[in-house]
Amino acid sequence: MAAFTLGWSDADGRPYEGNSGKGVRPAIALLCAEAAGAPAESAVPAAVAVELVHAFSLVHDDIIDLDERRRHRPALWKAYGTGPALLAGDALLALAVAQLAGSGEAMNYLSRALVELVQGQTADMAFEDRPWRGPGAVTADEYTEMTLGKTGGLLGAAAATGVILGGRADLAPRLWEMGRELGVAFQLVDDILGIWGDPGVTGKPADSDLRRGKKTYPVLAALATDGAAAHDLAALLHAGAADEHSVRRAAGLVEEAGGRAEAETLADRYLSSALTTLDDCLPGAADLRALCVSLADRIH
Amino acid sequence: MAAFTLGWSDADGRPYEGNSGKGVRPAIALLCAEAAGAPAESAVPAAVAVELVHAFSLVHDDIIDLDERRRHRPALWKAYGTGPALLAGDALLALAVAQLAGSGEAMNYLSRALVELVQGQTADMAFEDRPWRGPGAVTADEYTEMTLGKTGGLLGAAAATGVILGGRADLAPRLWEMGRELGVAFQLVDDILGIWGDPGVTGKPADSDLRRGKKTYPVLAALATDGAAAHDLAALLHAGAADEHSVRRAAGLVEEAGGRAEAETLADRYLSSALTTLDDCLPGAADLRALCVSLADRIH
Repeated sequence: MAAFTLGWSDADGRPYEGNSGKGVRPAIALLCAEAAGAPAESAVPAAVAVELVHAFSLVHDDIIDLDERRRHRPALWKAYGTGPALLAGDALLALAVAQLAGSGEAMNYLSRALVELVQGQTADMAFEDRPWRGPGAVTADEYTEMTLGKTGGLLGAAAATGVILGGRADLAPRLWEMGRELGVAFQLVDDILGIWGDPGVTGKPADSDLRRGKKTYPVLAALATDGAAAHDLAALLHAGAADEHSVRRAAGLVEEAGGRAEAETLADRYLSSALTTLDDCLPGAADLRALCVSLADRIH
Repeated sequence: MAAFTLGWSDADGRPYEGNSGKGVRPAIALLCAEAAGAPAESAVPAAVAVELVHAFSLVHDDIIDLDERRRHRPALWKAYGTGPALLAGDALLALAVAQLAGSGEAMNYLSRALVELVQGQTADMAFEDRPWRGPGAVTADEYTEMTLGKTGGLLGAAAATGVILGGRADLAPRLWEMGRELGVAFQLVDDILGIWGDPGVTGKPADSDLRRGKKTYPVLAALATDGAAAHDLAALLHAGAADEHSVRRAAGLVEEAGGRAEAETLADRYLSSALTTLDDCLPGAADLRALCVSLADRIH
């Protein structure tokens, strides 16, 4: 089951040559160690740990959200059942922790990321019960705070643990913050792709976020504008945008109300801030810098 | 949800004064630190970590096994839903790891226990698809191996991390083994209570293990005797012992075939071995010794 979820085998255990994820988090860990002046190999335990935590979180997320597809294939719970998938997720997490158990400094960051990840997921889940608009609506600050935890923590841990195993523990606190900000940019881009992305690239059904009424930033930002498009969007979401036509119409209204543009602007702002920190801490890290930029470039 | 699962509140968040578990694992950690000559308080992070891992494992176990009751109350997933309960379990685990993240030596044992716990649960789940008797049946060795992981690992980690935080890391490897053996005795006693225990004490419905056809040691040992009672038992289990009468009859046949006696003998053997190690490592640990003995005494 771990091999399936990591994209190494199909559901019958046969070798599988498909999409096994972008490997963003391990790449950050290895490039951080290299930028710190150590061989990339020195950060392999950190790279493995963050990728396993990422895999764990996807497996459990898909169970929680009842998402049936992941990376062009059935989600793990869909292929093997909920109980086994839950336990496989636990196993991935246990193995992640084992990678860094002996390194107290790195473990501290991994552990912090775990706590933030779960807090972020909890906040994300709680957003579902909040109204789309009005006094109880999710604010932009609440959304970025949730994203700092849900997506940022693990990118922060990738950078911090990579640089620690690369011998520059002094840089870890700032690279942790760099990774967290990068995470917000990354999540905002994911939100945009979740509405306007090509399902052939994302591996998920088109518009699944809108269809499920998930509270993503572009939609929240559109609704907060309070113009005509926002009113029409609110009415449409209230009725439930279930069929292809109304989902496409909702996406159009989000764009018309400026939700997409605002998400892009905010992503750029978080990316810039992350890059400023990165340039300051590790000025020679050209590959790492290029990777960070490419994460936000997926929408262009 | 964490407060509910730890027995501190009811499902509406009101304070609850009920059964919040025996606290065996934290007691072992604290008593080990004390026996090592340190204040019990020095092992509080270890005590908290092992209790949180235990709570995590119960929450996820109940989801996997679809058990609806835990400690005289609804299981967490029954009270709050599967998704939230799954995430609450993850949170308990994340917080457990955070307790010991800074202590590499203790973290190594906690991490090892996590991996063993998941491996043990996986083996336990795989047993369900095996036949009751014949060439593919679960052997006594396989059963104890599963139990060393599922129950023993965390008791081993409680003892090892307790003694490490108490300043006697040199004793950790042997106390880890002591805890694992104690875990086998503890699990065997739980198996016995799962069939013949008082639901008012165990907090679970009577005979739930037999009713669900769970492969516990007394049943496996009974079937392996291959006598008349074993044959009748096999036929009954094959038909599915669903109603009160056939469950009581199955319990009687397990006892008649000697399954209960063999489970008690094996529990005593593992307890004796654990006590020998304990007396050798920490000769003055009277309270700890009494606690270990009491865990196996619950059947008398």
